[in-house]
Amino acid sequence: MATGDIGLIGLAVMGQNLILNMNDKGFTVVAYNRTTSKVDGFLANEAKGTKIQGAHSIEELVSKLKRPRKIILLVKAGSAVDDFIAQLVPFLEKGDIIIDGGNSHYPDSIRRTEELESKGLLFVGSGVSGGEEGARHGPSLMPGGSPAAWPAIKEIFQKTSAQVRGEPCCDWVGETGSGHYVKMVHNGIEYGDMQLIAEAYDILKRGLGLSDDEIADIFVKWNKGVLDSFLIEITANILKFKDDDGEAVVTKILDKAGQKGTGKWTAIAALDAGTAVTLIGEAVFARCLSAIKEERVRASKAISGPQKEPFRGDKQLFIDDLEQALYASKIISYTQGFMLMRETAKEVIYSFFIDLTNLIKYVQVGWNLNYAGIASMWRGGCIIKSVFLSDITSAYQKNPKLESLLFDDFFNKGTWPSVHKAQPGWRRVIAQAVLWGIPTPAFSTALAFFDGYRSEIVPANLLQAQRDYFGAHTFRVLPGKENERFKAGEDIHVNWTGRGGNVSASTYNT
Amino acid sequence: MATGDIGLIGLAVMGQNLILNMNDKGFTVVAYNRTTSKVDGFLANEAKGTKIQGAHSIEELVSKLKRPRKIILLVKAGSAVDDFIAQLVPFLEKGDIIIDGGNSHYPDSIRRTEELESKGLLFVGSGVSGGEEGARHGPSLMPGGSPAAWPAIKEIFQKTSAQVRGEPCCDWVGETGSGHYVKMVHNGIEYGDMQLIAEAYDILKRGLGLSDDEIADIFVKWNKGVLDSFLIEITANILKFKDDDGEAVVTKILDKAGQKGTGKWTAIAALDAGTAVTLIGEAVFARCLSAIKEERVRASKAISGPQKEPFRGDKQLFIDDLEQALYASKIISYTQGFMLMRETAKEVIYSFFIDLTNLIKYVQVGWNLNYAGIASMWRGGCIIKSVFLSDITSAYQKNPKLESLLFDDFFNKGTWPSVHKAQPGWRRVIAQAVLWGIPTPAFSTALAFFDGYRSEIVPANLLQAQRDYFGAHTFRVLPGKENERFKAGEDIHVNWTGRGGNVSASTYNT
Repeated sequence: MATGDIGLIGLAVMGQNLILNMNDKGFTVVAYNRTTSKVDGFLANEAKGTKIQGAHSIEELVSKLKRPRKIILLVKAGSAVDDFIAQLVPFLEKGDIIIDGGNSHYPDSIRRTEELESKGLLFVGSGVSGGEEGARHGPSLMPGGSPAAWPAIKEIFQKTSAQVRGEPCCDWVGETGSGHYVKMVHNGIEYGDMQLIAEAYDILKRGLGLSDDEIADIFVKWNKGVLDSFLIEITANILKFKDDDGEAVVTKILDKAGQKGTGKWTAIAALDAGTAVTLIGEAVFARCLSAIKEERVRASKAISGPQKEPFRGDKQLFIDDLEQALYASKIISYTQGFMLMRETAKEVIYSFFIDLTNLIKYVQVGWNLNYAGIASMWRGGCIIKSVFLSDITSAYQKNPKLESLLFDDFFNKGTWPSVHKAQPGWRRVIAQAVLWGIPTPAFSTALAFFDGYRSEIVPANLLQAQRDYFGAHTFRVLPGKENERFKAGEDIHVNWTGRGGNVSASTYNT
Repeated sequence: MATGDIGLIGLAVMGQNLILNMNDKGFTVVAYNRTTSKVDGFLANEAKGTKIQGAHSIEELVSKLKRPRKIILLVKAGSAVDDFIAQLVPFLEKGDIIIDGGNSHYPDSIRRTEELESKGLLFVGSGVSGGEEGARHGPSLMPGGSPAAWPAIKEIFQKTSAQVRGEPCCDWVGETGSGHYVKMVHNGIEYGDMQLIAEAYDILKRGLGLSDDEIADIFVKWNKGVLDSFLIEITANILKFKDDDGEAVVTKILDKAGQKGTGKWTAIAALDAGTAVTLIGEAVFARCLSAIKEERVRASKAISGPQKEPFRGDKQLFIDDLEQALYASKIISYTQGFMLMRETAKEVIYSFFIDLTNLIKYVQVGWNLNYAGIASMWRGGCIIKSVFLSDITSAYQKNPKLESLLFDDFFNKGTWPSVHKAQPGWRRVIAQAVLWGIPTPAFSTALAFFDGYRSEIVPANLLQAQRDYFGAHTFRVLPGKENERFKAGEDIHVNWTGRGGNVSASTYNT
């Protein structure tokens, strides 16, 4: 008699915690792991006294599940997912559902949806965020894939996910790879949020010369205001966490940041979509720069910065400026992230997709993404959860067609909190950091984006003139400047030097 | 009787000009184009009175060439290159050489080298830079591919290329796709140089309120100093170039920058290599932001910036600061570009390479790049040619193992010109632009990189603490802080909350 509501493959920390969480919510979970001793260890320890069942083979796992069978994979992204799918398929029947809860790259989820649907099975690629704690007590879940799977998994997913104000942090995202796509953007935004916090910490530490305890108190205070969020909260906890000798553990940690690739994927997706997601890009590159620690140590001895001058202003005012800089930069990062989803949803293009036949098929797929729903899923359970995401949810609820967050009154009004009101402090912080010699790549790029975005004219006219000068790449006329020579809608080439030909470039790409 | 020294396919402006250039240098070129009426038009006009021959079919083209046959393709990158290769192969014999002079992506050149070598033919992927003018009077040529091809094409290539101080701006780059790789980095750097100039122009125009003529004079002056380069020179010419009504043409050009993809490729290659090539990244994204003109126009009406305050300082001093900011930012961009080549040469990894069998093969290929040679090839003929590249050539000639340009005395000495001496002005310019509300993404990211690079400690320790807190990702101990609990070389996990398990993450990737 099959009594399992759902199966789960992969008993690392995330898998174990998600099983315990689903068990708490009343579901019977069947646990399997390639190294089956892990199954026994889990049942004898963490899962002792629960309804959790174990399986020692794929066949046993499947046999213990009610139909339609639902099996979540929480294994390493890549070939391991395909391997387990291949092992599962022979034992599954029409309508059974394979769910990939790992951090798969969305083109893989598109491919897997297609492959499994062609066999009569259903596939869901679900973002799962929240780390250990989230998995155990309620993650943010972002499922997308075969729409027919949603009714069958909805109750388990929405009960297992975090709840904010009585609403689950889980909803159906959309078709094919959209669940993993939205999770990827979430992770990119997470990189950005973390980098912004790191820059604020650096300014407080190296700029103002505050102690870790003083900085912790600032984060505690910020966590009660507009910045109220999981990452601000844990930053305060981290700064207060002491080693046995009384020194903050954070100061004993090697300053080389690791990365698993999802931030990089987001930056590459942004480049492919032609969307200026600069803050995530800088956050990824900041981790790369941190990684060449030994080279930095040598450079720190060879290259000197500005004279260190003591801060002469009002420290508290400057700390308030910094809160505003962090808030405004965060608004920009989310603005960019939602712009990326908007551009991608318009026309999903996988320029790096391997199978050209499928490529042509998918080029024509557009996603109808529910932006309010996405912001809402991120409000709780996940790493980037924050009060701020409720404001974004509201903005998109008010206007589902909102062009960007910067057009929403809440984010652009003349009173605090808003990006408009944060501007003076934001600018003062960056100017001061620049003079101090403290790197603020994320703060700076956020402001540069903001100033560029609100510029009717940017100096790209000069770029176009240069491109036409050296490569005959042509340009268009600025509206209002049309005349006999420069006509609207025409690709114009000027013989700048009097020497070049009249042929405009068709093959030479700068 | 075959009398052709070299054949060329593709009679757009670049192809025509390269043929005329090779003809001037004494070589007999056979011209072919898919639309053969272009061949007739070219012979009857531009090529009239020269030794240039025409061909109306691939077979005729090949039959007119001396052995080993050398055929340059100057066609659109992508499938057109493969199509022409497929058409050529049946008519070619062992040792014949196909040269791709288009802007092909380097993984394609790796693949083509392999494919043609397996048929006994030779392949060269050559970067060709310099636009119309360069092609006509001497481009920068960056050939790489089958080493056996080099002796056969060396004379034609080195005579056709630009010459600087009696030295050709062409040398052998290396194996497989290295020629197109180096060209790609060149193009990325070109994006960066252009963006830096655009930001300087914007500051002079919107910040100081100078006229196009006044700005032109500044560029003329800069072109006599450390910034002496083709792009500074043409910027001055562009700013002086008037429409019939006396207004500078540049102010009539739509501020939407086009891009053909090589800047994007460089940024993606940097992300894949894990190298912080931030300036090119920002330059690409600045073009993306320029492209959403209509959204910017709407945003400019909805979102206000800082109060416009008149500049109260000494304008000439500020202009000198700006020259220093441009120079220092440029040093950073080239530093990053050479770091990217260094990292890629160490281990050439094509993570996006389609054929997995080949992938495994190429992962083990490393390039021995001659950095002095690369800088030297860029000194003339190409878009980024400058006096500055002679200084880079010297730096790598003095020390071929130079860790980065910032370690070279010339770039880091206490007197002008050097990045060290440029620092105060560079910082003042950015601080002022930030307060003005003029976007300087490239200037700012260059400075942030510089300040991060020369930082012994960056705040990535906090990132690692956060990653361990929420995802059990572990961290390492900072050298000098080791103790019983935190041991050198170990992946350390701390139970930050007292609630999490002791399992560190192996499958969950943030």
